[in-house]
Amino acid sequence: MYTFLNDSFVPDDKAFLHVSDLSIQRGYGIFDFFRVMDSYPLFIEDYLERLYVSAKEMHLKVPYEPEQLKALIFELIQKNNIPMSAIKVILTGGYSPDGYQLADKANLIMVQKPMNFPAAGFPTEGIKIITHEYLRDKPHVKTINYVVGIWIQNKVLEQKAADVLYHYKGEVSEFPRCNFFMVRKDNTVVTPGENILEGVTRKHVLRLAAKKYKIEIGSVTLNDIVQAKEAFLTSTSKRIVPITQMDETIIGDGKPGKVSKDLYNDLVRLESAERLKGT
Amino acid sequence: MYTFLNDSFVPDDKAFLHVSDLSIQRGYGIFDFFRVMDSYPLFIEDYLERLYVSAKEMHLKVPYEPEQLKALIFELIQKNNIPMSAIKVILTGGYSPDGYQLADKANLIMVQKPMNFPAAGFPTEGIKIITHEYLRDKPHVKTINYVVGIWIQNKVLEQKAADVLYHYKGEVSEFPRCNFFMVRKDNTVVTPGENILEGVTRKHVLRLAAKKYKIEIGSVTLNDIVQAKEAFLTSTSKRIVPITQMDETIIGDGKPGKVSKDLYNDLVRLESAERLKGT
Repeated sequence: MYTFLNDSFVPDDKAFLHVSDLSIQRGYGIFDFFRVMDSYPLFIEDYLERLYVSAKEMHLKVPYEPEQLKALIFELIQKNNIPMSAIKVILTGGYSPDGYQLADKANLIMVQKPMNFPAAGFPTEGIKIITHEYLRDKPHVKTINYVVGIWIQNKVLEQKAADVLYHYKGEVSEFPRCNFFMVRKDNTVVTPGENILEGVTRKHVLRLAAKKYKIEIGSVTLNDIVQAKEAFLTSTSKRIVPITQMDETIIGDGKPGKVSKDLYNDLVRLESAERLKGT
Repeated sequence: MYTFLNDSFVPDDKAFLHVSDLSIQRGYGIFDFFRVMDSYPLFIEDYLERLYVSAKEMHLKVPYEPEQLKALIFELIQKNNIPMSAIKVILTGGYSPDGYQLADKANLIMVQKPMNFPAAGFPTEGIKIITHEYLRDKPHVKTINYVVGIWIQNKVLEQKAADVLYHYKGEVSEFPRCNFFMVRKDNTVVTPGENILEGVTRKHVLRLAAKKYKIEIGSVTLNDIVQAKEAFLTSTSKRIVPITQMDETIIGDGKPGKVSKDLYNDLVRLESAERLKGT
């Protein structure tokens, strides 16, 4: 398999960065991540748009124009030939002259890996999540900083939970790698609007929800979740996953909810339509 | 010159990490940094102690016992023969199987570089600093996360400042890479006690100050600084640097202060005594 590194395709096991790179020295970089379905990168335009926004915000320059980068992604997909997979694009601060200053040139890495897609059909069981008080740095930018998310994994496992929901003084933001949604008793679909990374799946789910339900983008507190009828998370790799327990509280009737399932089915349909772009 | 990488000394330009390393994937790692003076690593015991504490806090295992690591540092110093220099030790999350999970083995990097020591004598001019509202993740641990510190460098330069002081709702913590001190009108030496990385230079300056002045470790607000007689920063590479302007406010009489200078002289003396350990 190949990885694309700056200007060439190299075998996966030959993809290295010098230790002066600012990701290694100072955790400085941005990335994006998308699924490849039947050899087509789903919603590629959305992900590339976000990548360039993240880069700009962090004073990094993507070394290709969007159309060039897209062509390189298609070339990577063709070379590797892994029809069901995921691609991660990382852009780092580059080889820093002094271990702090941004380099003139960012380092670009594109890695493709086989990926088990979420099992077909809406999950019959919901997950348990725990909560943690934490406000991310620059939450609206997809930086590579996951210090807290990885650090807390031990606790997530200890508590037999599947993920951890961040809040700050009770105000809910997001999971380390997923967005949060809840459904009120009147079927309004609600998701936090502040201090979050605007997920591509979140965006599509909101659009789908708006066709059938009332939607609300704004404040969500831990207490709101306790009162909710349904809750779920969205992410590129997981689509929609119902949440039935938060810490010691059972959410709704403790079963995956109807609105969540409805949106899941709509999302799967949207993916199929999107995939046809590649044919 | 050589870099030590995991288990061997490699030429500097051959020190690479595979892109699956968790520092590149997720900015996950810790580090420490100390000066080498006349080929002796100043205050090495302090820095190593902190390195092991940082590693433990972040669930990373240093692949050597402290005495072994110290011996490797002395070997690096001998091999490179750069009498006035600095060494950075980085420990990353290792080669992650999935780009998120910690690897079984951390990656250890030790790089030595020539370093211009601070010019002899206490600075005759103070620096200007700017302020920025920001609360670091896990401030008490020396993680490699400097996303905000590097991101804001442009603004520091635009404002013709030398550094940026973090505060949260007016409560001062630290600089990205330095600790903050101020001197009250009654000559009490004050430094923030919460949400900071406990610098080794800070520790020594506090001990030196306690011999001659009243010291206070606790809350410092931006308004306290406006009222202060003197202010300075401490860091491994900079020793003590007087601060005479914060944003648009002149501190004290706008000149480097007497207490700051006194502590600077004491620190230089302490360094000389410490250096003799190497003879």
